[in-house]
Amino acid sequence: MIPLSVPNIKGNEIKYVTEALESEWVSSAGSYIVEFENKIADYLKVNSAVACQSGTAGLHLSMRVAGITQDDEVFGPTLTFIAAINPIKYLYAHPVFIDCDENLCINPDSIEKFIEINCTFTEEKKLINKKTNRQIKAIIAVHVFGNMCDMERLMEISKKYNLKLIEDATEALGSYYTDGPLKGKYAGTIGDYGVYSFNGNKIITTGGGGMIVAKSEKDLAKIKSLSTQAKSDEVFFDHDDIGYNYRMTNIQAAIGVAQLEQLENFIETKEKNYNLYKKHLEESNYSLMDFRKDIRPNYWFYALNISESGFNTRTIINELSKSSIQARPIWKLIHTLNPYKDELSFKINLASKFVEEIINIPCSSNLTEENVLRVCEILKGL
Amino acid sequence: MIPLSVPNIKGNEIKYVTEALESEWVSSAGSYIVEFENKIADYLKVNSAVACQSGTAGLHLSMRVAGITQDDEVFGPTLTFIAAINPIKYLYAHPVFIDCDENLCINPDSIEKFIEINCTFTEEKKLINKKTNRQIKAIIAVHVFGNMCDMERLMEISKKYNLKLIEDATEALGSYYTDGPLKGKYAGTIGDYGVYSFNGNKIITTGGGGMIVAKSEKDLAKIKSLSTQAKSDEVFFDHDDIGYNYRMTNIQAAIGVAQLEQLENFIETKEKNYNLYKKHLEESNYSLMDFRKDIRPNYWFYALNISESGFNTRTIINELSKSSIQARPIWKLIHTLNPYKDELSFKINLASKFVEEIINIPCSSNLTEENVLRVCEILKGL
Repeated sequence: MIPLSVPNIKGNEIKYVTEALESEWVSSAGSYIVEFENKIADYLKVNSAVACQSGTAGLHLSMRVAGITQDDEVFGPTLTFIAAINPIKYLYAHPVFIDCDENLCINPDSIEKFIEINCTFTEEKKLINKKTNRQIKAIIAVHVFGNMCDMERLMEISKKYNLKLIEDATEALGSYYTDGPLKGKYAGTIGDYGVYSFNGNKIITTGGGGMIVAKSEKDLAKIKSLSTQAKSDEVFFDHDDIGYNYRMTNIQAAIGVAQLEQLENFIETKEKNYNLYKKHLEESNYSLMDFRKDIRPNYWFYALNISESGFNTRTIINELSKSSIQARPIWKLIHTLNPYKDELSFKINLASKFVEEIINIPCSSNLTEENVLRVCEILKGL
Repeated sequence: MIPLSVPNIKGNEIKYVTEALESEWVSSAGSYIVEFENKIADYLKVNSAVACQSGTAGLHLSMRVAGITQDDEVFGPTLTFIAAINPIKYLYAHPVFIDCDENLCINPDSIEKFIEINCTFTEEKKLINKKTNRQIKAIIAVHVFGNMCDMERLMEISKKYNLKLIEDATEALGSYYTDGPLKGKYAGTIGDYGVYSFNGNKIITTGGGGMIVAKSEKDLAKIKSLSTQAKSDEVFFDHDDIGYNYRMTNIQAAIGVAQLEQLENFIETKEKNYNLYKKHLEESNYSLMDFRKDIRPNYWFYALNISESGFNTRTIINELSKSSIQARPIWKLIHTLNPYKDELSFKINLASKFVEEIINIPCSSNLTEENVLRVCEILKGL
């Protein structure tokens, strides 16, 4: 069995978790939490970071602090995992679904075009959707598969229309720009908020977990407070807001510290395997999609274009499965799913095409060269 | 330093967690999750249970499935930790705050009186608050400190007025009725939904975590689905609802299985220490509150009445702190807190009295007889 993307727990995880358990600091306080936050902040070259229960929790908190609430609207991609969009609904607000660009990420041109056609920008600097009379308050930009959004354009648009820019970097820890005006900037550290995930399928894992960074230290402090039930007095149970139980535990953080030590090695392995796939699929009917040229991607997920193969995604996934190889389609477009089919979407074209053409193939950081060869062989033999 | 309530991690926790880490099943799937769910269900004498990230998450999911949404109302206690009430606001609904009874739990008489004065029960079996014109859909019953609510009365009321009854048993894992018509029934297994917490200060811990049981297997299946982003097709990313990332991880569950093995021992120790406190505070100005006579409590928290001492709670807590003893007041009443001060509350009397009179004193399951004696000595010497 060659799985799609599984955890790689061969570093100091057992050692650190054992230490945490022996200390009996297992819950939402403990030194590993602070250590993990500091080390992630250092890695990302930002001042500070706040650890939480999941990427979803991080996005929820970011949207809360961005001021999104009942009847607001938020631009978001239709081509992504549903967890990026659900927090909009947690806040009883509405997504406006946008198409993707050639990099599978939200298309800035589409956002601008939607605004041109449908919106007014008021003197109070509110972007109003004329169709619904609702205020659009933010853009959710998902860095799909470890690739990166066109952050330069998205920053321009968010500035121009007073929109908060929330980076969903749950798939892109370690990706950064290597060229242009954002050179050296990591995915998640460019917009107003950036959120990372340490779910089991991510490049590093804490079992489940997330991390949040923010441009404003005040916002980040508010996010941290909201993640621990908004206690304004630790002893006398005063609370200044409606908070959540979203703080990461010391056990999760102990795993995280050990995983972070291995992150750059994981990326190295993933890059090596990406290039191996590329090489062995040359002159076949399958091609691995490129990442942006101006970034160092984290190579989290490999997107295989099958449009020349004559098969559809379901057939190939099933055939691979017969050979004990796990593959998956990219997500069903969210604007087509039942819980979202009544929300606005704007000219979805490219995303619909990609959904038919792309599958993800095994990419775990413990994937061997032999595994890669086997996947390529099976594909070429179909 | 004698802490208030800290984890006791001296069983098979390290062994099981190491096994989970070695297996690399660390995330939201894995055999410990199922084992923990099954063992909790067996312990509680119910068919099944669903493990989640926290008690708060469990309450949120229960309220979602109970049908609570925007502009609904929910009866809840003002005397409890804010996490029991916050999920009402996550759903943009409103609490109606109710006083407590002599056992610190929500007062059924007060609910009935509120309904008599303020509500209409319609032909469609909807309970409408005439003041706000909103439907009241549920009661949140918190089993405070391991004591139990008057579940017989609450069941009658919820039946009579078509209200869902959600038991917040986050503090009461292991408490059960020993007499009356509910004899043998555990806290959490009587109403429509029951929620447990494994936070660090609880009787057993998973770092952070929760568990949900429900009267209806269908409801419980829905809760489980919502806890994993409501996937209706695991491979092809179909989702039939707005879900959450609330599933417990295998690492948390590994700790939980080890902790559950020790639960009855912890309760035994806590009962012993409770009786020791009682004995050593006899004929002092301090008295430990009783639990209901018709239950076996889990003795989670000890409530000390200080009204005869001549001191206020803050003074005593500070004095104990000077002797390195951690104590705490009961919670500030939620209807008085900033985020809730505009919500309805109904004749809060007894709760206001208790807040002035009661503190919690050290009660960890690793508290020694020597610790208990020291706390009593310091108290009596004030």
